[in-house]
Amino acid sequence: MIIVREVAQLRQAIAERRQLGTCGAKEVHGATIQQHTVGFVPTMGYLHEGHASLMQKAREMADTVVLSIFVNPIQFGPNEDLDSYPRDEARDLEVARREGVDIVFLPTVAEMYPQPTRTKIHVSALTERLCGASRPGHFDGVTTVVAKLFNMVNPDLAFFGMKDAQQVAVLQQMVTDLNMNVTIVPCPIVREADGLALSSRNVYLSAEQREQALVLSRSLFKVREVSEDGARNTFTIHQIRQMVESTIASSPLADIDYIEILTFPGLEPLLPEQRLSDVKEDIIVALAVKFGNTRLIDNIRLQKAEVLSHV
Amino acid sequence: MIIVREVAQLRQAIAERRQLGTCGAKEVHGATIQQHTVGFVPTMGYLHEGHASLMQKAREMADTVVLSIFVNPIQFGPNEDLDSYPRDEARDLEVARREGVDIVFLPTVAEMYPQPTRTKIHVSALTERLCGASRPGHFDGVTTVVAKLFNMVNPDLAFFGMKDAQQVAVLQQMVTDLNMNVTIVPCPIVREADGLALSSRNVYLSAEQREQALVLSRSLFKVREVSEDGARNTFTIHQIRQMVESTIASSPLADIDYIEILTFPGLEPLLPEQRLSDVKEDIIVALAVKFGNTRLIDNIRLQKAEVLSHV
Repeated sequence: MIIVREVAQLRQAIAERRQLGTCGAKEVHGATIQQHTVGFVPTMGYLHEGHASLMQKAREMADTVVLSIFVNPIQFGPNEDLDSYPRDEARDLEVARREGVDIVFLPTVAEMYPQPTRTKIHVSALTERLCGASRPGHFDGVTTVVAKLFNMVNPDLAFFGMKDAQQVAVLQQMVTDLNMNVTIVPCPIVREADGLALSSRNVYLSAEQREQALVLSRSLFKVREVSEDGARNTFTIHQIRQMVESTIASSPLADIDYIEILTFPGLEPLLPEQRLSDVKEDIIVALAVKFGNTRLIDNIRLQKAEVLSHV
Repeated sequence: MIIVREVAQLRQAIAERRQLGTCGAKEVHGATIQQHTVGFVPTMGYLHEGHASLMQKAREMADTVVLSIFVNPIQFGPNEDLDSYPRDEARDLEVARREGVDIVFLPTVAEMYPQPTRTKIHVSALTERLCGASRPGHFDGVTTVVAKLFNMVNPDLAFFGMKDAQQVAVLQQMVTDLNMNVTIVPCPIVREADGLALSSRNVYLSAEQREQALVLSRSLFKVREVSEDGARNTFTIHQIRQMVESTIASSPLADIDYIEILTFPGLEPLLPEQRLSDVKEDIIVALAVKFGNTRLIDNIRLQKAEVLSHV
């Protein structure tokens, strides 16, 4: 495993890997790719099994796996947790090694932003709801740094977790609109045995907060049950919302930032009176809930096919 | 010469050229490049000798020359000349053939924007003055379409005329900030024998406007004279500005949009009382002047070395 901290070294290491050729033609989203493929997993480090699942998927699909670890200052708001964001480089490198990563890119802030960036990439509409509403400027920071990283790595495939479902939708829009030559591969949320979605921010939780944080996944699993139950999938969006809200309200420590029920990946709002079974597009139920100073997000995606299979 | 109208064909044609290998190692801005290089000239068509000079430079520096011709709707304001912008595909293709272009990309609006783009690239600071102030949103349209074209062509070198000096500064900033793997090559302004800077928009001018439009270049040449004259290069920025203004005012048809004297490429304003000879950075004197409905731009760049050589 090669560890690099400078952009020029990264480009060099990837160029050398690309000259190795491929281990065989790969099937990527229906297209057959003959040349050496690069799979890229951009992260902010403090790696958990969710990140590991992205690396595994990359290892499976690409010839070379590149991991980046960079806590990107421009996606944090002034009152957010940039300074306290958890970091553990030694442990991260162990995880990367275990998962068969070929190249780890660990830049400093000065390497990524030698001058403060005057250039920002903005995706409209999709960034106005959910975390975009609670965290103004956050997604401009995400799209800008991801575009920078894509330009450095030039990956064929890039892997993102569906826990940040809005991020996946926003990045897919950017890639499509700007004709970026990369395929976004969304990967399923990884959860603890008791249901809590893995997050680097879970370490902030006290034992009591950790216990009560289970209301997030519990409320979402209830939605899945209802959607898969022929007798109850005629619930309206309003009823679903109420169900989620009352489940979360059962935790005295939970402070709801948002509960939204939207189409995916368009992130269009649904009417309160619409019945679950009548919606023809994929649906996402997305939550952001604070426990003390720690803001957790979680979501569940109801695929049209699943909903319809019980109609 | 290959003519393509679809993005997929363009990518395919360039991939085939890249497999040809190089005619020899090239010296590109100090670095030696061994692989096949692609030079890219993005234009809005109605090609003149200014465009031809870009293709010649590209032909000289790169193994493959790609020309794009696309009148980009998102860089035009609602009251601008999108619909009347001059077009002549047959003649453009002749020019391209004559200049030894390998691949011409002629997309439709639907091919470039299958859906209206939700993604925009914005460069701050540099876009707030000059044409950015007169044409709100213009540079977001330019940076966005150029990023799209760069992602399609993946060029090693991209050639732009210095007539749009602000565009060169803005695109260079975007490339640097987003770590795009391309070198911007600015090329000198090409002028008619009488001094008028070449522009596709010159065809809009009546005979009388065409004659009076010479005040632009005449005023800029006077600035150059002053800057190269040891007795007069102590003129202040204010005096230079007055000189330009009075020269342009000698044309009754000229309607001044802006006269600005700024550093280049930073586009920072200079103080009115500063002396030309005291400025340590490159200076640009930039004009936008309307003749009837036709808005012309022109500029002159005073290179520090030139100014200092007479101090």
